[in-house]
Amino acid sequence: MTESNRPPTGWRHRVHEIIFEADTPLGKAFDVGLILLILLSTLTVMLESVQTISASYGTVLRAAEWGFTIVFTVEYFLRLTSVTRPAKYAGSFFGVVDLVAIVPTYLSLIIPGGQALLAVRALRLLRIFRVLKLAHHLEGARVLWRALRASRYKITVFLATIITLVTILGSLIYLVEGAEHGFTSIPLSMYWAIVTLTTVGYGDIAPQTVWGQALASVIMIIGYAIIAVPTGIITVELSRVSREPISTQACPHCSAEGHDPDAVHCKLCGGTL
Amino acid sequence: MTESNRPPTGWRHRVHEIIFEADTPLGKAFDVGLILLILLSTLTVMLESVQTISASYGTVLRAAEWGFTIVFTVEYFLRLTSVTRPAKYAGSFFGVVDLVAIVPTYLSLIIPGGQALLAVRALRLLRIFRVLKLAHHLEGARVLWRALRASRYKITVFLATIITLVTILGSLIYLVEGAEHGFTSIPLSMYWAIVTLTTVGYGDIAPQTVWGQALASVIMIIGYAIIAVPTGIITVELSRVSREPISTQACPHCSAEGHDPDAVHCKLCGGTL
Amino acid sequence: MTESNRPPTGWRHRVHEIIFEADTPLGKAFDVGLILLILLSTLTVMLESVQTISASYGTVLRAAEWGFTIVFTVEYFLRLTSVTRPAKYAGSFFGVVDLVAIVPTYLSLIIPGGQALLAVRALRLLRIFRVLKLAHHLEGARVLWRALRASRYKITVFLATIITLVTILGSLIYLVEGAEHGFTSIPLSMYWAIVTLTTVGYGDIAPQTVWGQALASVIMIIGYAIIAVPTGIITVELSRVSREPISTQACPHCSAEGHDPDAVHCKLCGGTL
Amino acid sequence: MTESNRPPTGWRHRVHEIIFEADTPLGKAFDVGLILLILLSTLTVMLESVQTISASYGTVLRAAEWGFTIVFTVEYFLRLTSVTRPAKYAGSFFGVVDLVAIVPTYLSLIIPGGQALLAVRALRLLRIFRVLKLAHHLEGARVLWRALRASRYKITVFLATIITLVTILGSLIYLVEGAEHGFTSIPLSMYWAIVTLTTVGYGDIAPQTVWGQALASVIMIIGYAIIAVPTGIITVELSRVSREPISTQACPHCSAEGHDPDAVHCKLCGGTL
Repeated sequence: MTESNRPPTGWRHRVHEIIFEADTPLGKAFDVGLILLILLSTLTVMLESVQTISASYGTVLRAAEWGFTIVFTVEYFLRLTSVTRPAKYAGSFFGVVDLVAIVPTYLSLIIPGGQALLAVRALRLLRIFRVLKLAHHLEGARVLWRALRASRYKITVFLATIITLVTILGSLIYLVEGAEHGFTSIPLSMYWAIVTLTTVGYGDIAPQTVWGQALASVIMIIGYAIIAVPTGIITVELSRVSREPISTQACPHCSAEGHDPDAVHCKLCGGTL
Repeated sequence: MTESNRPPTGWRHRVHEIIFEADTPLGKAFDVGLILLILLSTLTVMLESVQTISASYGTVLRAAEWGFTIVFTVEYFLRLTSVTRPAKYAGSFFGVVDLVAIVPTYLSLIIPGGQALLAVRALRLLRIFRVLKLAHHLEGARVLWRALRASRYKITVFLATIITLVTILGSLIYLVEGAEHGFTSIPLSMYWAIVTLTTVGYGDIAPQTVWGQALASVIMIIGYAIIAVPTGIITVELSRVSREPISTQACPHCSAEGHDPDAVHCKLCGGTL
Repeated sequence: MTESNRPPTGWRHRVHEIIFEADTPLGKAFDVGLILLILLSTLTVMLESVQTISASYGTVLRAAEWGFTIVFTVEYFLRLTSVTRPAKYAGSFFGVVDLVAIVPTYLSLIIPGGQALLAVRALRLLRIFRVLKLAHHLEGARVLWRALRASRYKITVFLATIITLVTILGSLIYLVEGAEHGFTSIPLSMYWAIVTLTTVGYGDIAPQTVWGQALASVIMIIGYAIIAVPTGIITVELSRVSREPISTQACPHCSAEGHDPDAVHCKLCGGTL
Repeated sequence: MTESNRPPTGWRHRVHEIIFEADTPLGKAFDVGLILLILLSTLTVMLESVQTISASYGTVLRAAEWGFTIVFTVEYFLRLTSVTRPAKYAGSFFGVVDLVAIVPTYLSLIIPGGQALLAVRALRLLRIFRVLKLAHHLEGARVLWRALRASRYKITVFLATIITLVTILGSLIYLVEGAEHGFTSIPLSMYWAIVTLTTVGYGDIAPQTVWGQALASVIMIIGYAIIAVPTGIITVELSRVSREPISTQACPHCSAEGHDPDAVHCKLCGGTL
């Protein structure tokens, strides 16, 4: 173990325990406080974008924003110093999210009119997922994740079919309706095909000729029916993952895995588990 | 058993039997009558809100309303007097609903223009659920309820993901489209993101730039695909709950349960089932 | 067996064979011809309602309509005479549908301006379901029907919950938005709540205040999530029905049904199947 | 084996290996290149339909289009010459798609204003499906396909019910709302019924009378509920197909089936499988 990889000791160790773990009372209090701060700061970002509120309470919101940014900046540096490999943390998904949560406020000082950039701060909400370490929810997330992973090939095939369908149906409706009924280009017609196939149906563009409406009817019924496919895929995988032996106990004699959680004898060699 | 906890006797006992139970002919008649009254009073509330009807039949509806309120008030006090612990009933879910069903009408006497409050009376409809004691429906409700309860952690994870997704996608579309295309604030943009993700698609706000429509397409396809997740969760849990009572045969030797329906030997002790 | 219940003989028997059965070549030809006639007559009804077509080809369509009506009238009387109990047929579901298919055209002679009544003739399409006797499709329909029947209590609970939800949410949005934003009455607000909960989202009425949009967001997410419930119910029941013994073999000794597909002896009387 | 059926040899054999197979490095490179070309050519078709882009970069896009067409033409003839039976390839699904991908560009030389025909070239995207020979995705597609095939009778029944429902509900709303509220004909009313039943809900036509809205509410709830049916069908079939490859090995001692694929001992009699 090299010098730089040794786990931090002393105050850095205590900081690590508070920030990254939730076993101690102080660690738990830190987590709850952080969740509150993240929610409040996200709320601030939202309210700031509402013109009537921004006009009346602009100064208060700006002040709060700087308060949150400074707290998050301190937290970011504490995280950097308390982990064994700061570079690895900075490059990780949550390291980047942590940085993105504070940088826009500082940038707004340098770039005038960088208001738009501030909306990026809504990404802060993602940080809440790291704090949520509650066992039950993690188990739920794990099962969902494994089911999604297991069905990724089927979902890829499904999405490829959807995209092809959208391209061809969008081109067809462009042919049938044309620019005079609002279908001014193939990309726009594809956008309409997605709006229709997913049963969203804004109605900003709608077919007006008989053939266009007939084609739209076909697209709608297709969209209505094939929603069944991803649902079926996910259900089957979720069902399989849920039924999977949670017991990862291996047979001590032949090392076989996959026994029922309540099995006493190995189903391959007959030895006692 | 203290004095106050003793079950009511005499006429209070008979009232309890009629109001709270459905075994006797009188109890059944009371239930049917109550359901009719609840439906009629809900209909009265609805019709009263329609201006053309309210203008012509206002007096009749008002009279009917007072009639229902007086009957429900009498019923409320009968319930209070016939139960063992009146305070517990008054504080229970249905106790509060029963009170909310009668209070607004009386309040409308005191507070002028308390018309709005009257719409609260639609909550009366909730009372119908207590009256429905039919066995088959209760069984159906029980299975649904257990499946929902069993999947609560997965559904929490799913909802948290949806809310985070909506916040981030709403902020993104606010950046991309901006106030000039109707996306005047982040909360409004989040509202639009919910309208789009859930495939409702009002069309009151719709993206108009190419990038906005591209982002909207992604949101729609996400919304179209992830509906599969809650469906999968509920289906798997419903399937498990429905299968639960399957073969409750216990091993006669070691009393272990949970054998496959076609098992011949106990998987724990090997004895013949 | 009384006189009137005896099965028809002679030409009435032959007519019955052609009209009601599909085993003979003539019976099959009759079915195919009838399906074509039903489809054509439904198409005629549709085209007649299109003003531009009705203006140009009105006479042709009217003539075709009378042709279809006369053929269907002859068929109706042939059915009446060839069945054992004409009254029972006339009162059955398909007997009524057959009558409804021909009556409006005759009525249009008597009642001037009974144009609206003619749209009722679209019910003719229902007749096609009787003709479809293809084994595979019948099997598919049978499985669907049994799954729907088996889940009727759970679906009733689900629908009751939806209706209560719609009443309460409709009243709430009426309180929050009010007549000045288009929510002019509780029934209309309930209509909006249904449009939103089922994710249809016309957009003819849409919330405009912040609280209205917040409430709408909750309704949308509820609607998006609880669609999972009926889906789960049907899936579980379909899965159970599909696994059920398809064997419809009845015991030759005691006529009992419901034996396992691999059963050799009747489970009730012990006789060999 | 006749002369014409002998597999090509020499350079024709090598061309076949490159074009139709993906085992050799050259074959893989050809596939990747072809996918890129197809995507680029589809993009060109799309961009050409956007007026602002077409005005500025028309010449470049036209040139690219001719480039793609020439490459695809060469590829088409190489495929024709390298397969054993050219006629069979030319008549196959992908043979026709390959031809449709190149013909419109040549036709645009002869037929002036054949611009519309060019949108047909979007069908080129279909060709990508032939190139995708990745094992995992093929397996996913195979499972989806078998599930869809297995449920075709139930889906036919479902679609027939939907179409009948749409015809009858469309005629009803035409009766109830009539031409003065936008429901100008039965076909248009059926289009509206599809828009509503599939929960798309454009809002270009919406019921305005109380009875129309009541009928619409019923259609929406039906549409919301019966989406469960195709989902259930596909889920059950997908689940069955996914479970299929499970070892159909029967126990040689007691003939019991249904063992886990990795089981060594029969779970009923204990004998070695």
